[in-house]
Amino acid sequence: MEDEKKEGSALTRRSLLINTGKIALGAAGLVAATAGGMGLLSKAEAKGGTTEKWPWPYVKLDPQKTADIAYEEWYRIFCGGAVISSVFSQLREKVGEPYKSFPVDGFIFLKGGISGWGTICGSNAGANIVTNLILGPPIAGSDDGMMMGSEIMQWYSDASMPIYAPKVPKTKGEMPKSRADSPLCHVSVGKWMKAANKDLKSPERKDRCARVTASMAYHLVELLNAWKDGKYQTKGTFPSAAYGINAQSNCMECHSTNVPSPPTAMK
Amino acid sequence: MEDEKKEGSALTRRSLLINTGKIALGAAGLVAATAGGMGLLSKAEAKGGTTEKWPWPYVKLDPQKTADIAYEEWYRIFCGGAVISSVFSQLREKVGEPYKSFPVDGFIFLKGGISGWGTICGSNAGANIVTNLILGPPIAGSDDGMMMGSEIMQWYSDASMPIYAPKVPKTKGEMPKSRADSPLCHVSVGKWMKAANKDLKSPERKDRCARVTASMAYHLVELLNAWKDGKYQTKGTFPSAAYGINAQSNCMECHSTNVPSPPTAMK
Repeated sequence: MEDEKKEGSALTRRSLLINTGKIALGAAGLVAATAGGMGLLSKAEAKGGTTEKWPWPYVKLDPQKTADIAYEEWYRIFCGGAVISSVFSQLREKVGEPYKSFPVDGFIFLKGGISGWGTICGSNAGANIVTNLILGPPIAGSDDGMMMGSEIMQWYSDASMPIYAPKVPKTKGEMPKSRADSPLCHVSVGKWMKAANKDLKSPERKDRCARVTASMAYHLVELLNAWKDGKYQTKGTFPSAAYGINAQSNCMECHSTNVPSPPTAMK
Repeated sequence: MEDEKKEGSALTRRSLLINTGKIALGAAGLVAATAGGMGLLSKAEAKGGTTEKWPWPYVKLDPQKTADIAYEEWYRIFCGGAVISSVFSQLREKVGEPYKSFPVDGFIFLKGGISGWGTICGSNAGANIVTNLILGPPIAGSDDGMMMGSEIMQWYSDASMPIYAPKVPKTKGEMPKSRADSPLCHVSVGKWMKAANKDLKSPERKDRCARVTASMAYHLVELLNAWKDGKYQTKGTFPSAAYGINAQSNCMECHSTNVPSPPTAMK
């Protein structure tokens, strides 16, 4: 973790603004090449995009209301989009910019673990987008946004899901629960399908994912509110520091007993 | 695929604007509840965010220049951020909005497969963000953005990486290549580390990921340019339609010969 922080900041210092074709900082002012010729940019634009100032303004939200929105939004824009929308749609009203400028509906593709590929569960991806955009990325001065996202993935992996129970459920009957032990859609959905004996296209599987999405939105707002109150102490880690490779913790689930050792620096 | 499309559009119709707390469409005009009371919104805002109109304006970019930018940007904001920046930084200059409003630097967390967890490779995640934001999400009228992202993940999985060779490389010597057969960071990086016998923190591993990022940026712009010319015919698929679960195609790599069958609709 400490090494990773050092790596990030060292790389940032070394390569900041080199050859990116974006901005030339001159003593006489801030000048950039544009398609139409040379033009003066405002200081805000010169730092990058107009929304790249962190943290973004946040007001505390109600976790239950946010979860209720996420549940309904799943049936419009699925897991990742719904988590983002559940938070940003409220902040568009309560705060305005930069939330109005963020293209929430563009993130529908997070569904099914990125377009049905079963990689990261979209509710994890959406939550990471929210924490990193509100708290800010590491180069803005704090790792808290990234670590809150990492903490959420561990929480998701450990939880018996879904936690959220809708007031007006889309499906009737008891909702089976399962523990993913992974942030991946394929593993999470697969274990639930086995536990529930329901296929991917069943109304129950869809409603399970809508409820997982709402569960995520609820917990996400709990953490954001704690951060707003100055009480957030991250439980997040950067797993590669422990494993010597970017990884989740359930090694044996894929590797069985034959977990490979990564090459070490001395080799 | 066809079923998936039907599912999406049916869900969209059914739940559009229900209980999202965002917008009420009345015969008298567009009215929304805001934190400060009731107010009139512009038509653009009423549709959602101000940037949620697709496709986003695109002008053709030079693949080689884009790859060169991505390579340098990796050393500032890592794989996912660098892919987004390599395209959007040029479009900020050539087009302006909505690219100036998009918080590129907020996506540093895509590194290491989302904060070091080894899930989707950030260059895949970044490329998917770019294709879905430029071409638009499925509810904007076309699946092409999502399918271009899916096509890119298959291309990434099949390619002997890295393809890109920098003019001024950060590391000397021959760069080993490997085939991931997966869009996941853990699998992709792990296979390369094994092939190269280099550890995660080595300059060579970092430079390998910078070159993969540049390779991705190059191909991404090739596809975007073809789309701009009206010549894009997607090779992308939505894998769950074939597998009955959100999945990648290398089942035996984790499951060995014991690949489980998902529950079927008749059970």
